[in-house]
Amino acid sequence: MRYELYYWPTIQGRGEFIRLALEEAACEYVDVARRRGRGSGVPRLMRMLAGREGGELPFAPPILKAGPRVLAQTANILYFLGTRHDLAPKEERRRLWIQQLQLTIGDLVDEVHETHHPIASGLYYEEQKREARRRARDFLDNRLPKYLDYFERVLARNPRGGGWLTGARVTYADLSLFQVLVGLAYAFPASMRRAGPRYRRLDALRRAVEARPRIQAYLQSDRRLPFSEEGIFRHYPELEAGR
Amino acid sequence: MRYELYYWPTIQGRGEFIRLALEEAACEYVDVARRRGRGSGVPRLMRMLAGREGGELPFAPPILKAGPRVLAQTANILYFLGTRHDLAPKEERRRLWIQQLQLTIGDLVDEVHETHHPIASGLYYEEQKREARRRARDFLDNRLPKYLDYFERVLARNPRGGGWLTGARVTYADLSLFQVLVGLAYAFPASMRRAGPRYRRLDALRRAVEARPRIQAYLQSDRRLPFSEEGIFRHYPELEAGR
Repeated sequence: MRYELYYWPTIQGRGEFIRLALEEAACEYVDVARRRGRGSGVPRLMRMLAGREGGELPFAPPILKAGPRVLAQTANILYFLGTRHDLAPKEERRRLWIQQLQLTIGDLVDEVHETHHPIASGLYYEEQKREARRRARDFLDNRLPKYLDYFERVLARNPRGGGWLTGARVTYADLSLFQVLVGLAYAFPASMRRAGPRYRRLDALRRAVEARPRIQAYLQSDRRLPFSEEGIFRHYPELEAGR
Repeated sequence: MRYELYYWPTIQGRGEFIRLALEEAACEYVDVARRRGRGSGVPRLMRMLAGREGGELPFAPPILKAGPRVLAQTANILYFLGTRHDLAPKEERRRLWIQQLQLTIGDLVDEVHETHHPIASGLYYEEQKREARRRARDFLDNRLPKYLDYFERVLARNPRGGGWLTGARVTYADLSLFQVLVGLAYAFPASMRRAGPRYRRLDALRRAVEARPRIQAYLQSDRRLPFSEEGIFRHYPELEAGR
């Protein structure tokens, strides 16, 4: 099946978690809004958001079209793709554990976004810079360590070892955690450098995902958009000043 | 099976979405942290959060213990309970649609929480009051209408009619949407009163859930905690002043 991914064309954003899964699974897919020509581009994404492409009504991108089906919500799309493409086991007990990890990764991603948009996602960063500084300080001091400690512990507790979050094989949650780790290193390089030594397992996971042949090929292709100050992970030096 | 729910004992919070599902399904459950005596109360919740109650490690409450299994993340717990207790169909296609709606409800809940805690969840409201005012204004002007419009449209598009979000029977997503609607009416009474006439289907859903015998009995019992200024839905008149 050829999937259609609907996401904003100029940022990694939440669409990137879907792209990484599609790439690792070697799925055929079209990144609809990045494509030019008739029936593509952002107008097509807007049609989808307006519910004029069939299927169930999505609230926001990323959106995946799989034949006649339309799925939205990052974690939900990954749950769907996981068992179909061997990025999650079929047994429901383990699927729900992976999904729980994915939802926790999603919460962390939301909190990263809030560091530069604590007042309104519709306003520019420059319009909430002072508040962003306070929010980022709290995030780096209190929230981020809590999340990183948690995932490091989950890795340590995986009875199958092997360096993945669960079981002996890579899952979509490992791919998403990789994305968060490289995103955090982009956005908060000083904080992450300092924290590094405490999170050896997280660092090993990041390197293990990065070394996977399909991921490596993807990261080197022009399908991988660069990090930038328009996405979730933004590097504003003032947000970690003095750290 | 007798379930154990682990959640903060004095607020509805995110635990309430689980309580509503357990009550509607007439499940036997213990609200562990609200119970007194040995092996109960908040110390037991803290043991669970420390990973000393067995099962997979949770990041935050609500947490559900189902026999030897430990599940966390509100939407994930509901997905698990849904098919087991007839609050969701068994067919995966429809399960994922309900889950997508639940995750969107969860996003709205997160945004409601941010209206009174835009800077840091660990600080008091009073320490971020000015920022809360800006955030709440944006939420009420831009975000809330977007969510309410969306759910009203989903209700209108349900081919089975009947007033539920999907299909002809109540699901856990309907129960959660009910909770959000009564919570919003508590937190932002003026805004919700003004918006009311535009959302007839949402209002009908709220009333339909409220009228269900088990929900009605629950709401009148002392198992239902009251709304308060310590939960997600808080009534701070200044946050909708002048509206």
